[in-house]
Amino acid sequence: MGFMQALRARWERADSLVCVGLDPEPAKFPPRVAGAPDAIFNFCREIVDATAQHVCCFKPQIAHFAALGAEDALQRLIAYVHSAHPGIPVILDSKRGDIGSTARHYAAEAFDRYAADAVTANPYLGRDSVQPFLDRADRGVVILCRTSNPGATDLQDLIVSDGGRDARPLYQHVAEKIAHHWNGNGNCALVVGATWPQQLREVRAIVGGLPFLVPGVGAQGGDVEAVVTNAKTADGTGLVVSSSRAILYASDGDDFADAAAAAAKSLRDEINRYR
Amino acid sequence: MGFMQALRARWERADSLVCVGLDPEPAKFPPRVAGAPDAIFNFCREIVDATAQHVCCFKPQIAHFAALGAEDALQRLIAYVHSAHPGIPVILDSKRGDIGSTARHYAAEAFDRYAADAVTANPYLGRDSVQPFLDRADRGVVILCRTSNPGATDLQDLIVSDGGRDARPLYQHVAEKIAHHWNGNGNCALVVGATWPQQLREVRAIVGGLPFLVPGVGAQGGDVEAVVTNAKTADGTGLVVSSSRAILYASDGDDFADAAAAAAKSLRDEINRYR
Repeated sequence: MGFMQALRARWERADSLVCVGLDPEPAKFPPRVAGAPDAIFNFCREIVDATAQHVCCFKPQIAHFAALGAEDALQRLIAYVHSAHPGIPVILDSKRGDIGSTARHYAAEAFDRYAADAVTANPYLGRDSVQPFLDRADRGVVILCRTSNPGATDLQDLIVSDGGRDARPLYQHVAEKIAHHWNGNGNCALVVGATWPQQLREVRAIVGGLPFLVPGVGAQGGDVEAVVTNAKTADGTGLVVSSSRAILYASDGDDFADAAAAAAKSLRDEINRYR
Repeated sequence: MGFMQALRARWERADSLVCVGLDPEPAKFPPRVAGAPDAIFNFCREIVDATAQHVCCFKPQIAHFAALGAEDALQRLIAYVHSAHPGIPVILDSKRGDIGSTARHYAAEAFDRYAADAVTANPYLGRDSVQPFLDRADRGVVILCRTSNPGATDLQDLIVSDGGRDARPLYQHVAEKIAHHWNGNGNCALVVGATWPQQLREVRAIVGGLPFLVPGVGAQGGDVEAVVTNAKTADGTGLVVSSSRAILYASDGDDFADAAAAAAKSLRDEINRYR
């Protein structure tokens, strides 16, 4: 089963649009985990086991592992999700982008080495830089469109013209290209930040049913009702609403996994109120 | 000594604008190296030792290591360059880009874990996504502007308008922002591909003396004379002309290191004819 099918199946079975972002920061780990061996893997594993029933997918962010030399923990973590929680897809959040001959190595990193079901990618280098990801039809390619950070306005909001077409912001051009020109294998999704409800609505109007990965609820301040009402598809799905810090570090005590489960369930329920 | 000082010192001392890109592909290794342990490290080490006298810097491309789980070899390789060839800076080619809280982890990956002197970065997420790199004033931040691949035209050539300003291609807007707004610490450089001589000239006119990392000569077909005459600064420097495959795999036999040295020297001499 490919990523898109697995995601749709999981939206239905778990009745959840929640994605838990796995961004391990050892300084925030509770004492019981921080003091024991293999802390990064074990912290994430406990989070995964506690929240799995409430989520449609998991999204490990690779820099949090790479900065600590913890690639091995990341590899084992993704394998653990697949074996202990089959049917829950894993999006590797690495936002890669390079020329085609190098992009093939990034595709091998994400899909072969880490066995991720989907990967995030950056569109600045153009289609050929994403093609090696797109060619893996059973995997998802989640491409940056309108990101959740303040600096998103610097480039993504610039008004662009493309030959005779009407002027529009760059992120809308990116959305249209991906939905209508790069998605031949039906495996594309878009990153559109929760902090920009108007932009979520505009992108949804351009791309039809393409799934959105929506970071920015929780610590970054995105409003759940505004996200869901502006960005859901007609059938009340189409969204992967990602929360990391607000779930992982809901408690700094040894009850962190229970607190994470409660936070994930609460986010799921809040989202479902507006679907 | 910071990256920019080290680079300028090396341009002068080695009389070279050549950067050897370290893109290990084990299938292309000669039999003597391929069959021995620690092949990735040893292949790159032999290339480094053979070409060091002809280069201003080295540029390992991280995907080539990450796809193979060879982060440890990359870490030892950068440490080896620093210890065996002091004064030659290392640019880690990883083209990272993420929201600020995650970008801090990418800066830690490049500068603390790998001890790189500079890193490549992607501007699509805007200034705050690059800020954790910029804040490391002693390190270089080499930001994508106009890349060497065919898909560069997809986004980078779109005509953008920014308030009342004249319309211009996105890559020129990016160049101007970086040179005049992001470069407060004087540690920015730009990626401008060798395959676009006219764009090299236009970007040079916008950014003054900012160094360019220029990939795309050799395997990608960029013309050395056109690159140097269009992109050099007034003093005949300002360029880091990167070649990977044409140097690394100049011979597929056990004389690969000698062949790489000859190819690096030949590129240096050809560049110097037009400075």
